[in-house]
Amino acid sequence: MTTKPAASETGDPLLLTPGPLTTSASVKQAMVHDWGSRDQGFIAINKMVLEKIVELAGAQGTHVTVPVQGSGTFAVEAMITSFVPKTGKLLVVINGAYGQRAKKIAEIAGRAVATYETPEDTPPDLAKLEAMLVADPAITHVFAVHCETTSGILNPIADLAALVKKQGRRLLVDSMSAFGAIEIDARSVHYDALAASSNKCLEGVPGLGFVVCRSSALAECKGNATTLVLDLHDQAEGFAKTGQYRFTPPIHVIVALGKAIEEHAAEGGVAGRGKRYRENAKVLIDGMRAMGFQTLLPNDLQAPIIITFHMPTDPKFVFQNFYDGLKDRGYVIYPGKLTVADSFRMGCIGRLYPDHMRGALAAVREVLDEMRVTNGGPALAAE
Amino acid sequence: MTTKPAASETGDPLLLTPGPLTTSASVKQAMVHDWGSRDQGFIAINKMVLEKIVELAGAQGTHVTVPVQGSGTFAVEAMITSFVPKTGKLLVVINGAYGQRAKKIAEIAGRAVATYETPEDTPPDLAKLEAMLVADPAITHVFAVHCETTSGILNPIADLAALVKKQGRRLLVDSMSAFGAIEIDARSVHYDALAASSNKCLEGVPGLGFVVCRSSALAECKGNATTLVLDLHDQAEGFAKTGQYRFTPPIHVIVALGKAIEEHAAEGGVAGRGKRYRENAKVLIDGMRAMGFQTLLPNDLQAPIIITFHMPTDPKFVFQNFYDGLKDRGYVIYPGKLTVADSFRMGCIGRLYPDHMRGALAAVREVLDEMRVTNGGPALAAE
Repeated sequence: MTTKPAASETGDPLLLTPGPLTTSASVKQAMVHDWGSRDQGFIAINKMVLEKIVELAGAQGTHVTVPVQGSGTFAVEAMITSFVPKTGKLLVVINGAYGQRAKKIAEIAGRAVATYETPEDTPPDLAKLEAMLVADPAITHVFAVHCETTSGILNPIADLAALVKKQGRRLLVDSMSAFGAIEIDARSVHYDALAASSNKCLEGVPGLGFVVCRSSALAECKGNATTLVLDLHDQAEGFAKTGQYRFTPPIHVIVALGKAIEEHAAEGGVAGRGKRYRENAKVLIDGMRAMGFQTLLPNDLQAPIIITFHMPTDPKFVFQNFYDGLKDRGYVIYPGKLTVADSFRMGCIGRLYPDHMRGALAAVREVLDEMRVTNGGPALAAE
Repeated sequence: MTTKPAASETGDPLLLTPGPLTTSASVKQAMVHDWGSRDQGFIAINKMVLEKIVELAGAQGTHVTVPVQGSGTFAVEAMITSFVPKTGKLLVVINGAYGQRAKKIAEIAGRAVATYETPEDTPPDLAKLEAMLVADPAITHVFAVHCETTSGILNPIADLAALVKKQGRRLLVDSMSAFGAIEIDARSVHYDALAASSNKCLEGVPGLGFVVCRSSALAECKGNATTLVLDLHDQAEGFAKTGQYRFTPPIHVIVALGKAIEEHAAEGGVAGRGKRYRENAKVLIDGMRAMGFQTLLPNDLQAPIIITFHMPTDPKFVFQNFYDGLKDRGYVIYPGKLTVADSFRMGCIGRLYPDHMRGALAAVREVLDEMRVTNGGPALAAE
């Protein structure tokens, strides 16, 4: 190893993953305090966080933010089971693990489900989707993923939303890995509910999911939920009555999210955050391609969130050694593989800047050399 | 105000509540780092945390700890809906809000429910409980609260467990506010599952619940759950396969809990932690009684966790002013009231020592004087 390992502001390896992410030192420092969960000090911070999220969504006056303790998937399950009535039917648009997960959630909760599935590298064909809605009037709700973290694909959420509205159905969006960096403005994209979490593009720490809920739709949701803790209608009612969580909130996570949202605004909001991530993604993709790696997705389908690269075919390339070599150099990449292709993933989000991505590229080069994967890069380099 | 406000090691007001609590500075400092949720570093910390909880419970070899993102109530809902099959029937033993909540959870999940309810200051009569079990063979499970945080009452959990076992039923325990400070040893108290959380007597920060599950009983739970995220069987299977959470864990909260459990061991484990809380409770109760306050509970029913005091009848005593006056002096008490009696509550748990309780008593005295509540203390003083 020729270089000193890279490290975050707090001396930790840099996380090039789909989240949890590297966060700023100041976001984490915000957690070095205690608050009473029912005291006005914390109630005011939480209120600010919920309101700022509505602003970020462009949803003032139409939507409210309902937080869900746990994680993003808790928010997605809360959204589906609170919004889709027991007599409803959900069409799940699937091109990755998060679409599959939504389908599973709806099935476990006993909701009628239809699916429209495309491969992990293929966005939905909206004409086909429209035909399905026309053919099945029982479908009341459509669930779609904004950026599918599985491959990193950006789905055409605005056009899909317009179509769902035209067909008189309700849209539930999983914008987990996109919200805060890729615009989805409620004034132009019509949805009933959108789920996201503290620890993706808002750059907070994990522990809180949230759902931006259209107030008029949420008002119809009383009694839909099949659980107590994931009932968004009941949770929202608690806030309306007392400003308090019904059940103990992850206070430190929420205060850190407040700090993270401050820093998000200082960076220029969704536009500023998105710009940095697009720069990160460009540096990473260009550099990896220069070493012979190929991306799963063409540029026009690629969100600047997480990039999927085909695994080199050179037998000297052993993924675990690649992972460990990068980690030794201070870069933690996502350890999982995809189903659609033998591939690995590197994230561009969190408190990372283009120079960090250049550092990661230098580390990739070193590890490839150490593994003696030569030939100007991985053997598959053929583009 | 004659004294400087009290403050924790990190300069915050002291939390005399049932939780979230004042935690040590070192527990909070543990959160000023980032980890990859699927990286070995975090996986090892999490494994240690889950194993230490099993040890604390005296349950090595018989039980496993299954964590639940969210809060204690998330763990309770996960426990009830994972352990009680759809064809089962749950008898809920109630003497406060947490028993009521369990009943609500079971009803929403569509489980058959029976209840045995006593007033908030009255423990269950075990002979009556036994008669109910004998009379209703359909009851498969019994749910009981160890320390009911509503009043602070300590329920006779060991005797209750013996009875449930004798009658051939399964016991689910909510030990939320007792676990870690009041002994409940799985070697002598027979239960299938026990729920608790990160932010009570273990003195971690909020964001994680957990269930100590009898392995043989958990193995029978496949398919019981009515949700994806709260399915303990599926969650446990994930750990068995990969050591990883199925869904993003609250990493910082878990690492803080690891540090908190270290400090718990250094204090002498359950015995040491319980000793300090009993001292805190004694100082508080003696001092409050000396000022004329009366406790809701007699000493033999009082857990050293949270103490309920009758509200003084002197009309010059205004609770909001009392709360605010104490907060100005650095002591945050629980703002809620009970249903059984006009009363308020003060907690004894968290990173608090007898000197903190003496400080709180001095603050109470000052605030009473400021409100001109005289007569040697509240007017109701008649014991």
